[in-house]
Amino acid sequence: MRILLINGPNLNALGVRQPEIYGHMTLAGIEQAVAERAGRMGAEVRAFQSNHEGAIVDFIHEGAAEAHGVIINAAAFGHYSIALRDALVFTRLPVVDVHISNVYAREPFRHHSVIADIALGQVSGLGWRGYLAAAEALIEILRERGVS
Amino acid sequence: MRILLINGPNLNALGVRQPEIYGHMTLAGIEQAVAERAGRMGAEVRAFQSNHEGAIVDFIHEGAAEAHGVIINAAAFGHYSIALRDALVFTRLPVVDVHISNVYAREPFRHHSVIADIALGQVSGLGWRGYLAAAEALIEILRERGVS
Amino acid sequence: MRILLINGPNLNALGVRQPEIYGHMTLAGIEQAVAERAGRMGAEVRAFQSNHEGAIVDFIHEGAAEAHGVIINAAAFGHYSIALRDALVFTRLPVVDVHISNVYAREPFRHHSVIADIALGQVSGLGWRGYLAAAEALIEILRERGVS
Amino acid sequence: MRILLINGPNLNALGVRQPEIYGHMTLAGIEQAVAERAGRMGAEVRAFQSNHEGAIVDFIHEGAAEAHGVIINAAAFGHYSIALRDALVFTRLPVVDVHISNVYAREPFRHHSVIADIALGQVSGLGWRGYLAAAEALIEILRERGVS
Amino acid sequence: MRILLINGPNLNALGVRQPEIYGHMTLAGIEQAVAERAGRMGAEVRAFQSNHEGAIVDFIHEGAAEAHGVIINAAAFGHYSIALRDALVFTRLPVVDVHISNVYAREPFRHHSVIADIALGQVSGLGWRGYLAAAEALIEILRERGVS
Amino acid sequence: MRILLINGPNLNALGVRQPEIYGHMTLAGIEQAVAERAGRMGAEVRAFQSNHEGAIVDFIHEGAAEAHGVIINAAAFGHYSIALRDALVFTRLPVVDVHISNVYAREPFRHHSVIADIALGQVSGLGWRGYLAAAEALIEILRERGVS
Amino acid sequence: MRILLINGPNLNALGVRQPEIYGHMTLAGIEQAVAERAGRMGAEVRAFQSNHEGAIVDFIHEGAAEAHGVIINAAAFGHYSIALRDALVFTRLPVVDVHISNVYAREPFRHHSVIADIALGQVSGLGWRGYLAAAEALIEILRERGVS
Amino acid sequence: MRILLINGPNLNALGVRQPEIYGHMTLAGIEQAVAERAGRMGAEVRAFQSNHEGAIVDFIHEGAAEAHGVIINAAAFGHYSIALRDALVFTRLPVVDVHISNVYAREPFRHHSVIADIALGQVSGLGWRGYLAAAEALIEILRERGVS
Amino acid sequence: MRILLINGPNLNALGVRQPEIYGHMTLAGIEQAVAERAGRMGAEVRAFQSNHEGAIVDFIHEGAAEAHGVIINAAAFGHYSIALRDALVFTRLPVVDVHISNVYAREPFRHHSVIADIALGQVSGLGWRGYLAAAEALIEILRERGVS
Amino acid sequence: MRILLINGPNLNALGVRQPEIYGHMTLAGIEQAVAERAGRMGAEVRAFQSNHEGAIVDFIHEGAAEAHGVIINAAAFGHYSIALRDALVFTRLPVVDVHISNVYAREPFRHHSVIADIALGQVSGLGWRGYLAAAEALIEILRERGVS
Amino acid sequence: MRILLINGPNLNALGVRQPEIYGHMTLAGIEQAVAERAGRMGAEVRAFQSNHEGAIVDFIHEGAAEAHGVIINAAAFGHYSIALRDALVFTRLPVVDVHISNVYAREPFRHHSVIADIALGQVSGLGWRGYLAAAEALIEILRERGVS
Amino acid sequence: MRILLINGPNLNALGVRQPEIYGHMTLAGIEQAVAERAGRMGAEVRAFQSNHEGAIVDFIHEGAAEAHGVIINAAAFGHYSIALRDALVFTRLPVVDVHISNVYAREPFRHHSVIADIALGQVSGLGWRGYLAAAEALIEILRERGVS
Repeated sequence: MRILLINGPNLNALGVRQPEIYGHMTLAGIEQAVAERAGRMGAEVRAFQSNHEGAIVDFIHEGAAEAHGVIINAAAFGHYSIALRDALVFTRLPVVDVHISNVYAREPFRHHSVIADIALGQVSGLGWRGYLAAAEALIEILRERGVS
Repeated sequence: MRILLINGPNLNALGVRQPEIYGHMTLAGIEQAVAERAGRMGAEVRAFQSNHEGAIVDFIHEGAAEAHGVIINAAAFGHYSIALRDALVFTRLPVVDVHISNVYAREPFRHHSVIADIALGQVSGLGWRGYLAAAEALIEILRERGVS
Repeated sequence: MRILLINGPNLNALGVRQPEIYGHMTLAGIEQAVAERAGRMGAEVRAFQSNHEGAIVDFIHEGAAEAHGVIINAAAFGHYSIALRDALVFTRLPVVDVHISNVYAREPFRHHSVIADIALGQVSGLGWRGYLAAAEALIEILRERGVS
Repeated sequence: MRILLINGPNLNALGVRQPEIYGHMTLAGIEQAVAERAGRMGAEVRAFQSNHEGAIVDFIHEGAAEAHGVIINAAAFGHYSIALRDALVFTRLPVVDVHISNVYAREPFRHHSVIADIALGQVSGLGWRGYLAAAEALIEILRERGVS
Repeated sequence: MRILLINGPNLNALGVRQPEIYGHMTLAGIEQAVAERAGRMGAEVRAFQSNHEGAIVDFIHEGAAEAHGVIINAAAFGHYSIALRDALVFTRLPVVDVHISNVYAREPFRHHSVIADIALGQVSGLGWRGYLAAAEALIEILRERGVS
Repeated sequence: MRILLINGPNLNALGVRQPEIYGHMTLAGIEQAVAERAGRMGAEVRAFQSNHEGAIVDFIHEGAAEAHGVIINAAAFGHYSIALRDALVFTRLPVVDVHISNVYAREPFRHHSVIADIALGQVSGLGWRGYLAAAEALIEILRERGVS
Repeated sequence: MRILLINGPNLNALGVRQPEIYGHMTLAGIEQAVAERAGRMGAEVRAFQSNHEGAIVDFIHEGAAEAHGVIINAAAFGHYSIALRDALVFTRLPVVDVHISNVYAREPFRHHSVIADIALGQVSGLGWRGYLAAAEALIEILRERGVS
Repeated sequence: MRILLINGPNLNALGVRQPEIYGHMTLAGIEQAVAERAGRMGAEVRAFQSNHEGAIVDFIHEGAAEAHGVIINAAAFGHYSIALRDALVFTRLPVVDVHISNVYAREPFRHHSVIADIALGQVSGLGWRGYLAAAEALIEILRERGVS
Repeated sequence: MRILLINGPNLNALGVRQPEIYGHMTLAGIEQAVAERAGRMGAEVRAFQSNHEGAIVDFIHEGAAEAHGVIINAAAFGHYSIALRDALVFTRLPVVDVHISNVYAREPFRHHSVIADIALGQVSGLGWRGYLAAAEALIEILRERGVS
Repeated sequence: MRILLINGPNLNALGVRQPEIYGHMTLAGIEQAVAERAGRMGAEVRAFQSNHEGAIVDFIHEGAAEAHGVIINAAAFGHYSIALRDALVFTRLPVVDVHISNVYAREPFRHHSVIADIALGQVSGLGWRGYLAAAEALIEILRERGVS
Repeated sequence: MRILLINGPNLNALGVRQPEIYGHMTLAGIEQAVAERAGRMGAEVRAFQSNHEGAIVDFIHEGAAEAHGVIINAAAFGHYSIALRDALVFTRLPVVDVHISNVYAREPFRHHSVIADIALGQVSGLGWRGYLAAAEALIEILRERGVS
Repeated sequence: MRILLINGPNLNALGVRQPEIYGHMTLAGIEQAVAERAGRMGAEVRAFQSNHEGAIVDFIHEGAAEAHGVIINAAAFGHYSIALRDALVFTRLPVVDVHISNVYAREPFRHHSVIADIALGQVSGLGWRGYLAAAEALIEILRERGVS
């Protein structure tokens, strides 16, 4: 079983910028934690981060063929990148949408997502642990669907 | 550490009604699974379900004094029960808002929550596993804050 | 064939309060008239009224198993009780939504219903006779569907 | 007692087009059924259908003088024909607004009516039986008001 | 100088229906009064009324070639008949939009006009005298522009 | 019979500023023309202009006692001065709302009036002649109501 | 003279929860203060609090017959409980709507009330003293209307 | 293969009125050009134009039985004639919606269509050539679907 | 302790105009009643009324230095005078917003206030007694804050 | 004559992903078909596709100088990329906006375009043939304007 | 070259009230700084401040004849005074709209301006230096246009 | 002191495309002018332009560490690039938002900015001089804050 772990714009600065909102965990730390948790459950993780919308779309096109599910924190792109939505829909893979902070407690424009309605589910506000929760549930659901 | 696990209206029918949306797990099954997961992490769970808004408000008033966190699937009440919101705010406890289905992929009125902005975080669309994800993250965050 | 006849909040005061809007027929009179009309058509009616949303949800959960259709005047709850909507949807029974007064000629908030779109049909503004119209049509439609 | 029975655009195709929404009863069948039911109650029905808004307005002007009530399924015109609304208001007759399908379960533009608020009442979603329900209630209400 | 005087749906009933809103003057009376006032100012009036949108559009197409201005009380059509708007724009003639009642003091949907912004001006709420005011001003403005 | 003729802000510049919108007639010219037309009909005009909202409100309070009707071009104040609206309502006098240009063909904010719904009627887009039309109709309507 | 004093959900926690918003006065203290003030003015107070909407509706039905006025702090219910609104309207009693905090300075959803427009008046933001102000004014107004 | 070519209100004036928006091609010229292009592709065209909504609905009812597709420039009716929409839906035929001008570059009310979402496709802003484009694509798509 | 008592436009006509809405008490009577009530509580009142927004702003600037609180019935200005809002904010004094009538039961534009959210509290619908309620509560709250 | 043929994000997957919406034609196939059709009409096509908004903007800047028209299927970018709109406007070239599917029959956010109002025209829902229709019309219109 | 420097309501309190938002510079200080900067560039400044909308309109009428440009901080009036907008438009002078604070970071009603769209440009959030920036740019632009 | 000067999409074409809106100054000219003005004030400017959102985000991440302030003309990105907003917020640097044209006098979508509320201030409509105004004010404000 292979999971794509995608992080959107500005998340390369996790742990460094605005820790009062996003916490002190770095992106590398999160990617490693997810890989470990997934590894213990028998799944492999392929991680990617970019500030470029087009690069993420390219990655999805390229990586989807060999993947069984997607965990994505689209960050700002989640609010307007219909290109990203379309790329995810094209894959027909189950997607879990992760937000580190509770977007519903922030600016109104963060309450709207162009991805949420095409995702399998969403986790928000649980900090970096949200990625683990997403990975665990996604892997179990995939297993239930017969993905090995 | 004690966690209140609250389920709102119609969730007594979980596993029986509309399994294509809500799955086959019963409420008793979920309550037990959460209690077990929490138990393994050293936390105790006090579960409650009601179709009566007032009964849930009463339960929160009565139970909050000895609790450290709340996991709530407010179901329909999450869309309009400001009384429930106010009761949760009164407790000053961290709240995780759980939805079994992906509310963002359903009717527009389910996209709006009167609880989401006062919660610590939200899990939706991950089925009954969403309760486990919520429990695990909430307990770890409480522990990090020094609750034993 | 068994029909649930449900009346929502304040309808216990029918015939007594605001007769210029709701007429002089009492709730007991309406329940009896519906039972008689249904009886002549070979159907049995089980009637319930409450000012408590939770009690109506409980009644629906409990009564649906042995019923074939629902006639409901949700009154005020029809405008906001998503819990009631969800309970009705759970039953998978055909529902006829009755309003004594013409809600479309009253305050704007009465124009919106959280039940209308999940009902089979709606009767409004025909006074207490609206219940009879709903009963007759519902019973005939159920018969047409093979309910005996 | 004389009732005008008016059917708006495209209803000449009832029973032929889109039976999955509108059923298999033809317009002639409905007109006959209403006439029979009304006849048994001592009322006479004058039926009219047109795809031309102006023709319906003309019919109302011409027919209202000798009529005591109106049953109208304005179909599409019910959503925008203020000319039709004005013509109905001019008659000062009680109007019952009938819809074969449940308009509240269809496209959002069908939820808005320019007639509903000036009608006595509305029946929707009960199929061709809705006309009978409307006729019966209207005739009884007219009788109660002393129309013979 | 020739003026088209156009009256829309239901105005054939002026003076007969709802005199508390529209007054006791009949349409024939208004047409005569406008013709007299215009005649004294050296202008000829060609009057038309219909409850049929298409008939009014046809009349405008046919009559515009020999006319210098239009006085129109589009009645209900003024709120939605873009066909009528387009026909008026096609004529390139100055149009005065007349309303017998004060539309801004009535239902909200009467506050919106699809004609007002392409008209030269508007007169509302001055009763049948509004037609005279419109005629007088239109003729003087046309004279000022060199129409004889 | 006495008529108040009130002109709002910037109308002191009529005939001087933006003649392409407002024409070449000065305010003095308009006041004189209205006085003459009214005089021929046996009515007296008391004219006032100010750029100060409070001064117009004061004038209405002071002048209403001896007046029988009001002609007002509230200009910009017509779009937001609820104080002016309230002052006019207090007088209980019939008010005709005049606009030199066709406000419905200009910026959207000019389409909204806080005076139109409490006026007897409105004339717009007929240039300075709109004042004459308003005066003539108002005086005739007042006469019809028995004001001498 | 008898006054009903009704307090809605979560107000049982007054003085205990969120004193920075609601102050340190308990509900019992408020009820006593209102009773004393009313008593000095010759009126009797019957107090009730519940977190159950249905219980408040029941109380109004039962208590209205012998009461002359209502002071209500509907708390959260004031924003959505149309059932409560309908119950109050049914009583035909004058109602004063009290809010301890200034609802207009809080979340936008607290700016909307389903009770305000059917109340005699409203007091907000004056803390527990708002109840006294409401009581005093209501009793004096009732006295003026001849209630003894 | 037979195609209905329907043109709505005011299009009889094509080539004569407002050529700066609609061009110099007449309606007869367009109908002939479409017939020729279709003829070369082996399809027959039946053309109709009316300023009467009802006449177009009648034409669709009457013509649909022997047709395989519809090309319609509903003109103004495209923005509000739900009767026309319903008539088109009733036919179950593929419809191509043509606009001579680019409606998205004109008044906002022209951006909304009651036909676009039930059409196969739409062509706008390509002038009279848009009809040819529509005809060619429609005929090829019908052929692909096995219509001969 | 000194209180500014400010009344906005048209309130000079209190007791004279529209007594069915505003009652029969004159402004002088209200100012005297407030002064007496405040006097008995040891506070001094400085009263001001104007129909000029600028004059009220000037008064606030000039009077705030020696005042401890403000009671204001901004009347129409409360709905749009941001200048008045800014002036009140500048004073940093607690403000009580008084309305004689229940603004929430009147025209929709009266439901919006540019002052309510920066006030300490609001009293509406209690007639002239609302000023007394405001004065009493304001003085007691100021006393509690240590103003003597 | 030279035409730019631009395809936006995810269109590289045409023919492969979601053929039920977008058909089985690949992007290479479409580019070749357009080039052939244009070639037969004497025009040259320069084709470009990217998932990167910036790359498309760069291409437009670079390619516009030697081009006479643009055919663009902006895909997702058409709904939000104002950068793309600005780049197109900068070229002052006629643009035809192509959509393979009927965007008006899909999610509401696809009904809004930031390009449609600055385009010459739009073709949607005609599948890959829409490109040919766009090419043919654009080339003929350019020829009519004297481009050779 | 002569510049009008206009400051709206409450700005007389600059430097005294709310310095955390508006800074410590007084209005006199700003007027002097602008005059000096302008003087060095060869332009003369005529400064005016009022809390009275009408006084500012009067000043613009009177001062525009001899002025070449306007710098205005309309303060609260910028959000609703259409009278002020009209007065500025009447002058046909270039206007620079200055705000000391960043209005886009404050209450939503401060984001809307009735002046911004008729101004040459806007400076906000740069404190008192915004006036200097406006003056410098305005004078250079006027010079470029040949004003000496 | 170091300032980042960032220009968004299409601004590479400044001075070449649409000079009637954006003027004749090239981007290189602007960058040089800002550098000179800043240089005279003792500050260094690092300039960057890209049509790629991701490249600008990358530049901000990379450049922020050694910068003290940002001047940005985000062009089209200012209306939707929340990624850019987040990147700017991450820097915690003061940002001045510059627009060459007066965005408030252009299309409505240009009135909304996702950057304005997190900026220190904004300059619009002053042409290329707006950059100088921004630079001067920003440098002085930074100096005031002790940046050397």
